[in-house]
Amino acid sequence: MLDTLFRPRSVAVIGASTKELSIGNSVITNLQRFGYKGEIYPINPNSPEIRGLKAYRSLAEIPGPVDLAHIILPSKLVPQAMQECGEKGVKAVIINSAGFKEMGDAGAALQQEFLVKARKYGVRVLGPNCQGIINTDPALNAYCNFTNTIPKPGHVSVVALSGGVGGLIMQGLVDIGVGLRIYASNGNACDVSISEIVRYLGNDPETRAIVVYTEGFANPGEFLQVAREVAGKKPVLAMKAGRTEQGAKAASSHTGSLAGVDIATELIFEKTGVLSFADEGDLIRAAMAFSSQPIPKGNRVGIVTNTGGPAVIATDVLVAEGLDVPLLSEKSIARLRAALLPQAAVENPIDVVATASPAHFRAALDTLIDEDGVDAIFMNFVTPSFSDTQAIAREIVAVSQQGIKPIVCNFMSDLSQERFQVTQRILLDGGVPCCALPSDAARALGALARFGRIQRRPASEVRVFPDVDAGLAKRIVDAAISAGRSILSAQEVYGIFSAYGIPVAPWAVATTSAEAAAAADKIGYPVVVKVDCAAIDHKSDMGGVVINLPDASAVRSTLDQMQARLAHLGELKFFIQKFMPGGQELIVGASVERDLGHMMMFGLGGIYVEVLKDVIFKLAPVSRSEAEAMLSSIRSAALLDGIRGKPAVYKRGLVEVIQRLSMLLTDLPMIQEMDLNPIMAFADSVAVVDGRIRI
Amino acid sequence: MLDTLFRPRSVAVIGASTKELSIGNSVITNLQRFGYKGEIYPINPNSPEIRGLKAYRSLAEIPGPVDLAHIILPSKLVPQAMQECGEKGVKAVIINSAGFKEMGDAGAALQQEFLVKARKYGVRVLGPNCQGIINTDPALNAYCNFTNTIPKPGHVSVVALSGGVGGLIMQGLVDIGVGLRIYASNGNACDVSISEIVRYLGNDPETRAIVVYTEGFANPGEFLQVAREVAGKKPVLAMKAGRTEQGAKAASSHTGSLAGVDIATELIFEKTGVLSFADEGDLIRAAMAFSSQPIPKGNRVGIVTNTGGPAVIATDVLVAEGLDVPLLSEKSIARLRAALLPQAAVENPIDVVATASPAHFRAALDTLIDEDGVDAIFMNFVTPSFSDTQAIAREIVAVSQQGIKPIVCNFMSDLSQERFQVTQRILLDGGVPCCALPSDAARALGALARFGRIQRRPASEVRVFPDVDAGLAKRIVDAAISAGRSILSAQEVYGIFSAYGIPVAPWAVATTSAEAAAAADKIGYPVVVKVDCAAIDHKSDMGGVVINLPDASAVRSTLDQMQARLAHLGELKFFIQKFMPGGQELIVGASVERDLGHMMMFGLGGIYVEVLKDVIFKLAPVSRSEAEAMLSSIRSAALLDGIRGKPAVYKRGLVEVIQRLSMLLTDLPMIQEMDLNPIMAFADSVAVVDGRIRI
Repeated sequence: MLDTLFRPRSVAVIGASTKELSIGNSVITNLQRFGYKGEIYPINPNSPEIRGLKAYRSLAEIPGPVDLAHIILPSKLVPQAMQECGEKGVKAVIINSAGFKEMGDAGAALQQEFLVKARKYGVRVLGPNCQGIINTDPALNAYCNFTNTIPKPGHVSVVALSGGVGGLIMQGLVDIGVGLRIYASNGNACDVSISEIVRYLGNDPETRAIVVYTEGFANPGEFLQVAREVAGKKPVLAMKAGRTEQGAKAASSHTGSLAGVDIATELIFEKTGVLSFADEGDLIRAAMAFSSQPIPKGNRVGIVTNTGGPAVIATDVLVAEGLDVPLLSEKSIARLRAALLPQAAVENPIDVVATASPAHFRAALDTLIDEDGVDAIFMNFVTPSFSDTQAIAREIVAVSQQGIKPIVCNFMSDLSQERFQVTQRILLDGGVPCCALPSDAARALGALARFGRIQRRPASEVRVFPDVDAGLAKRIVDAAISAGRSILSAQEVYGIFSAYGIPVAPWAVATTSAEAAAAADKIGYPVVVKVDCAAIDHKSDMGGVVINLPDASAVRSTLDQMQARLAHLGELKFFIQKFMPGGQELIVGASVERDLGHMMMFGLGGIYVEVLKDVIFKLAPVSRSEAEAMLSSIRSAALLDGIRGKPAVYKRGLVEVIQRLSMLLTDLPMIQEMDLNPIMAFADSVAVVDGRIRI
Repeated sequence: MLDTLFRPRSVAVIGASTKELSIGNSVITNLQRFGYKGEIYPINPNSPEIRGLKAYRSLAEIPGPVDLAHIILPSKLVPQAMQECGEKGVKAVIINSAGFKEMGDAGAALQQEFLVKARKYGVRVLGPNCQGIINTDPALNAYCNFTNTIPKPGHVSVVALSGGVGGLIMQGLVDIGVGLRIYASNGNACDVSISEIVRYLGNDPETRAIVVYTEGFANPGEFLQVAREVAGKKPVLAMKAGRTEQGAKAASSHTGSLAGVDIATELIFEKTGVLSFADEGDLIRAAMAFSSQPIPKGNRVGIVTNTGGPAVIATDVLVAEGLDVPLLSEKSIARLRAALLPQAAVENPIDVVATASPAHFRAALDTLIDEDGVDAIFMNFVTPSFSDTQAIAREIVAVSQQGIKPIVCNFMSDLSQERFQVTQRILLDGGVPCCALPSDAARALGALARFGRIQRRPASEVRVFPDVDAGLAKRIVDAAISAGRSILSAQEVYGIFSAYGIPVAPWAVATTSAEAAAAADKIGYPVVVKVDCAAIDHKSDMGGVVINLPDASAVRSTLDQMQARLAHLGELKFFIQKFMPGGQELIVGASVERDLGHMMMFGLGGIYVEVLKDVIFKLAPVSRSEAEAMLSSIRSAALLDGIRGKPAVYKRGLVEVIQRLSMLLTDLPMIQEMDLNPIMAFADSVAVVDGRIRI
């Protein structure tokens, strides 16, 4: 679908200009300088020729077909230009002009006007208020963009909402010698979305890693779907800005797109295996590592250094990134002792010392390649005057190009000196990722390892429980909908839970004290009595809840008193439930997230949720491993393991509750919000003690 | 004291070599290339001349005085060379050679051997196993170091234990155009310490910011003292590596210095106002900002950008750094509306848009300089082809050089193009700190603001309470020492607390049940009875604690039972105390920290300490504002403000307890460890309910 946008055989520039450095001139200059293999058609009513090319007065005059057109005109002229594009049969348009939705209502109307025309003719639109695209495929060399950074061909593709950030990511990649495949910045994103572009890049065989910058998604569900398809195939590295409230405000003021402090974007990244970055430098350097290095099969890293301190810094960061710097095997240590200088450290980090020869470096690297206890190699490589640094670099490249284990190099040098420039060139041309600072390099290797962990995640299969009575639950919800109620009664809530096999504290409904006492006898004492009335929001405050009733007579008198006290509410139903003190209070909840289904929440109840906000969210449906991760990733997770003599809670049962609830949410998408609060967890059972469902 | 090391009038190189790129040759080359203004004396028994300089066969042959000598000899020859230095009257020696303490016992013995000789003659030693020093003072141009990076003169000084990290920090500063003042790397640090060098730099008027890299201090107390003196005068930026267990292990394997996962170093930084960095890149970029920019008077930042996305990223990071991006005043907004392009955003960030002229930039900057609601200026400056970027840069420089508010610039450009190199040169030469990435630039400004907050910290005056009976407490401790006891009895502990005005739950000691009942009558019921016996560690497990006794008869019978049960322990004393349920359980503790006095701890009691490890540490003595910070910086701080209907606890009283305890620790340095656990805190009182002191 997007092939004419990214692989145009001819490009028209509507608003081509003779004025150097203007956008209407730069786009043509860029196409020419980059060696574009297709036809370029400048369109300008006043100039017969622009930059040596015949210029046309209008699209219609162009003799051949036009795949792609840039529109670089004042915004009010864009709808007419779009009309002409449609008539000419142009397949894709890049609107570089600004002055649309980002400028308020009048601009939004103009945007809508050209969009209607585009849809009519089936023209796909990138932008408006955008930079454009670059495709470095040597068969094409399409630089349909007005920036001035010239990338070399490679395997990293970049897509960014913001041209400013897209440009700086591209510049960052160029600065560290990483080749680019496809670049796209879609500005106001009125038609072609980031999600569509990511899908296209997922299918581009030459794209090995995809870098995404966004400030939020207009259609998060579309991105969820695309990320599911693509992130499994190749690494997707993403950064979402506007993470703070003030950042989100800054974002909404400069784009027409949706922005807000949404945690949903991060949840999509996490669920689909998109690697999330909070720092654009880390993102760029990780892309460098992904462009040439294999993914480590585990978290264990061996370090080779020729200087002490930088290896200490790197070790700190690698460990913080979830990597392990393990002891080496006896065999490796013996091999290093035999091969290295006597003053070398044969621990991990292996310090070959500053006077090490290329052969010493090679021996250290070969040892780590052969060492079963190591999955990745980190290097601190400083360039002392007296070292043959170029020969050392060639050894590193030789080992890296075996492609057995990933290598990331912290290359520390004075690049104003030619011999060290040559050394770095050897490394970069050999595909060895280099960072000047140890922390930066360590985080780049950390990203490779993070992706490895994602690849090794247990298959996220969502369990379907055969013992569920989905029909019953559906009937309960449908009845409430028919009755025009949005809050379900306790009886309905528990009915739905029971239909899905979610354990609830034994309960019954009664209207008289005699019924209540009989029910309580059956349930067993102590019991709780609650008035079951959707109209009462805070039952406890109204005296509508009495706990720990020890026998039938207490139940009877409680009911009588409640009926007297709440008589003004009409005829009441009462909810009799087993009282279950002494467990660990927990909460599980769910709410609808725009366009994404439900977001589920887990936390410890009471102050842990209310005051300490110690909760974790995941997008439904939630698999077993995801449910397990919810339990283990709250800050207070240790409390689930039993403390101060309390036994550990029944985690398996809790995980199953979360999974069953996930299935319930999938089956009943009309549920807007629900809470299981609290769930009481004991050593060998869990039971929902109170619940709420809003539809 | 260190003047001859950092300002030598003559340098001898013992172990000078004719072999190019060797250390014995590089040191001389560096002195020559850097334009050293003093005498250089190569010493080599076999060459009459080295690099055009007359070489001497020995130190003794040198006609004039020698201030500083490099020793570049095999380690076993170093003691003899040191002897000759002493005899010649050399004042300072840099030992570049390795092979000492870092190589184990034999090396350590050699190190001790030369050190004894150095001490005998009063020679100060830098190293061994170190790089050396650089002093860029144009009157001196001393490059006494074997690295090959050439810094330009400036105002940032660097001191590092590790030459590798020192070198990369220096290289990083050179790469971003920051001038260096003094550089020193002291390797094994057998004599001249980092602390001494920091003190020297504190007194160097041309050093505006000091950068410190360490892996731990051999004498933390010395650094505490120096940091107190220096960090108040000028910014000290520090990084301590070996923060993780594995990082610390890596550190200890490459230096002879102490390293360990100590939190004490961070506590020293925090207490003295040293700015701590976890990332060397952030450290380097912050140093750039400090080298030319004033410190902001507040946390409010105004942003000027000519591109949207990077300002969003910057806003996120600035907010995370504790800065605020406030709305501008009506007046500023009106001024911007009048001065900027119609499509500009006059919010904060101010988006002047890509087509902005130099005058537009200037108007935005002038507005922020005049805006009372803004303390610092952040710029995102991208270089579109069509902009006069050099003229824009000159406007930024002009505003920056007014020195009114700090400016940090995120300069995004393609530096392979000459016109943009010139633009950046204008900014850097004009003293405008530039970072290629918005997050990096934002963190650099964040560091300036962090220092501003430190400068505005309330004076950390330690309160001396006049109502304290220090003599009584001292007598109690002395008596225990005389008796050879290291654990104090409950009576002693409470006696000491009372002497320092620390509120304890009312208590009395009794030996008979009659005495106990009388005491309880006086204290008021309910009470707790505890057996007061240092020999019983876990009193509760032994049945030695009974709580909530309602009346005299319960006290009597409890005492009788305890006496019977614990008769095997001999004659017992009992501790009668007011029972105080229902408050918030808290814990305050202290322990001796090697060489630093006491480290104090505060946290919520019970699971918050035991399971969630939610505690905060500070070095004693603790001022009121530090004590207040302890209360507010635990993760569960909100629990102190009252939850679920509970009132807020009496924070003022709690703060005073911490201050009184701090005074107690200062007066009684022999206390090794103590706990006030729990302290019960209520709405208008706090009381220690149990305590422990070990001397």
